[in-house]
Amino acid sequence: MNGTYAESGESMSLIVQKFGGSSVRDIQRLFHVAQRIRRDQQQGHQIVVVVSAQGKTTDGLIEKALEICESPSKREMDMLLSTGELMSISLLAMALQQLGCPAVSLAGWQVGIHTDGSHQNARILRVDTRKIHQLLDEGKVVIVAGFQGVTENGEITTLGRGGSDTTAVALAAALKADRCQIFTDVEGVYTADPRIVEEAVKLQEISYQDMLEMAAMGAKVLHYRSVELAKQEQVCLEVLSSLNEAPGTLVRSLRDSSPSLRGLTADQTTLYYVIPHITLEDAGRLMTDLYRQEIRPDLAEQPAAGQLCFAISSHQRSAVTEGLKRLRLGALLDENYAKVTIVGNGLTAIPQLKQECDSALQEAEIPCRSSWLGERRLSFLLPRNQAQKAMQILHPIVLRHRT
Amino acid sequence: MNGTYAESGESMSLIVQKFGGSSVRDIQRLFHVAQRIRRDQQQGHQIVVVVSAQGKTTDGLIEKALEICESPSKREMDMLLSTGELMSISLLAMALQQLGCPAVSLAGWQVGIHTDGSHQNARILRVDTRKIHQLLDEGKVVIVAGFQGVTENGEITTLGRGGSDTTAVALAAALKADRCQIFTDVEGVYTADPRIVEEAVKLQEISYQDMLEMAAMGAKVLHYRSVELAKQEQVCLEVLSSLNEAPGTLVRSLRDSSPSLRGLTADQTTLYYVIPHITLEDAGRLMTDLYRQEIRPDLAEQPAAGQLCFAISSHQRSAVTEGLKRLRLGALLDENYAKVTIVGNGLTAIPQLKQECDSALQEAEIPCRSSWLGERRLSFLLPRNQAQKAMQILHPIVLRHRT
Repeated sequence: MNGTYAESGESMSLIVQKFGGSSVRDIQRLFHVAQRIRRDQQQGHQIVVVVSAQGKTTDGLIEKALEICESPSKREMDMLLSTGELMSISLLAMALQQLGCPAVSLAGWQVGIHTDGSHQNARILRVDTRKIHQLLDEGKVVIVAGFQGVTENGEITTLGRGGSDTTAVALAAALKADRCQIFTDVEGVYTADPRIVEEAVKLQEISYQDMLEMAAMGAKVLHYRSVELAKQEQVCLEVLSSLNEAPGTLVRSLRDSSPSLRGLTADQTTLYYVIPHITLEDAGRLMTDLYRQEIRPDLAEQPAAGQLCFAISSHQRSAVTEGLKRLRLGALLDENYAKVTIVGNGLTAIPQLKQECDSALQEAEIPCRSSWLGERRLSFLLPRNQAQKAMQILHPIVLRHRT
Repeated sequence: MNGTYAESGESMSLIVQKFGGSSVRDIQRLFHVAQRIRRDQQQGHQIVVVVSAQGKTTDGLIEKALEICESPSKREMDMLLSTGELMSISLLAMALQQLGCPAVSLAGWQVGIHTDGSHQNARILRVDTRKIHQLLDEGKVVIVAGFQGVTENGEITTLGRGGSDTTAVALAAALKADRCQIFTDVEGVYTADPRIVEEAVKLQEISYQDMLEMAAMGAKVLHYRSVELAKQEQVCLEVLSSLNEAPGTLVRSLRDSSPSLRGLTADQTTLYYVIPHITLEDAGRLMTDLYRQEIRPDLAEQPAAGQLCFAISSHQRSAVTEGLKRLRLGALLDENYAKVTIVGNGLTAIPQLKQECDSALQEAEIPCRSSWLGERRLSFLLPRNQAQKAMQILHPIVLRHRT
């Protein structure tokens, strides 16, 4: 087959492309995305597209539900939220057809994206590929609804935060795609969020492990689960912009380099809990309970006997609230903190790193509530309103210790 | 089981209730409907609910599609439009749960509403009942998405105009329900639209055949296909208001009475075609083509050799346009007419009926372009802007000849 596509210098490959909600938020963006897909298909590639719900659709649906019910059933929420992606896939298929490009949309259950039964936070168990391969062989662009799946009992599920990324990676793995492209509104993975740190540098490539660490620590460009799955299935990910043609960042297997820094992230939605009275036994129970839900409280410490403090990300709040309730524990919740993290490799082997950071923060008069140094990251718990300033101050240190 | 519900004086029965889009258009209406459903369930009935999309949702989705594409693919339109009902079923389930009434929503494919593959106008082939019966036995209200189905290949279809009525009747037939209640914003079937004719009388009951004729001639209260299916499957239909508790109209098998009138309807969207040059052969071909699509051109005449005139309802326009195109026929289209129809039984045996109507119209100076008298109806093609006046003038004649 290669000869057919000699002109482009590339052989035919199967590419999974994922577009987020802002990339398809209105008609203009939708056609922009459609044109890009058509071009790639015309170059001889087989294209499977994963789309999220348009713009603020999902938020609007959640709002509707909350007007009816304070805590709606998770099953019915999944039924409701799954419609956002069904709208965007059909509209994108129409846009492609309007451009003369044969396209067909598929709901999660139509593909056969099989998940477990954890409504609102389901895990993909396996993906059927027969229907997609058949449609690709008919020359069609196949557009799959992100974020949704179906249980073996035919119940509709959604995958939770960043679900569409996970759909894309799972499809790429099942289809043995040559590449999984995640289109977003930034040009790739940077040493820091370029909207906050002007000097941030785009990375050509990053290892799965470094990307996982950055995602876990608040980088929004890729969701943790999708990177985890990509690593496990060895899917070559590419993060790039849907707005321009700049080369993106490849996320893949890389040999561990010598000790060096990779990037800087911030979780500005950190919640800091102080439990003033807790037995060691209950502390263990609480942690076990949270770990079981894939929540890893960070920066935990026991400042005094019978006390426990820890940080989580705000989207994990309800799980902690429930956990505390079950154990009948009272806790103080402080929402005034952010967690700023330097990610890298062999951090403890970089001389003076911690001291350099501490002095830089001290000089800028940014108080640090707590910090953690490990092989792969150095985190600081700081006042939320100073997080951006802290990033700007710490970023030169990251650049100095890259490679 | 009957003894358990002795207090209400009724035995437990299985009821299918259908609520249209305006009945669930906002939160207040949604809860109003939910309360009514809960009450009926608490009286010991098993309740299956069919809902349409909320208010103007479907119109909004169609508009979105037309912004992208002048004639979107029917398959993708079905994917898009099916979301309207998925939203309303999940929201209604949440409202019921909020009222403490266990409820579960099901998409068409989850129930197993199997249709043929005619996208946008699919026919129900069969309905699975296993899942619904199972959920009813668990004490739940089962809420089914109207208007949608699934083909044997797993393609999503929609049923066309009035599709939710058809879903309700098909479910009632398959479940052998005791009754199928169609809730709407009028209190039942009237001798004429009470918003136009003040003196219109609500019917306690009407036969399938009379209801079919009225639906075919423009009465909007029930859709033709749903009545046809109800007749075929002997489903006892009840049309009633979702806004109050007034008794509605029963639609069922009735012995044909002596010649009498039943009601008056108007199709104010009538389109009148004049084909100035057509061979007899082409006329036959055109009619065959339209009949095959279940379109019955009405008031057809051949005023001069090689000419053909006929009336259709405006929603059938595209089928006629395509039919004319295929046969390369030019036609004049007049949108200034309405069709007003008196429905009844043995009309030719009612002495002077036609003359009475003709003189009444003449006296009111309403010109009549064409008319048709048959056993079951008497239709007049009139200027559209005089249709309401004509109804007010003809209604006393209908009342005079009832029974």
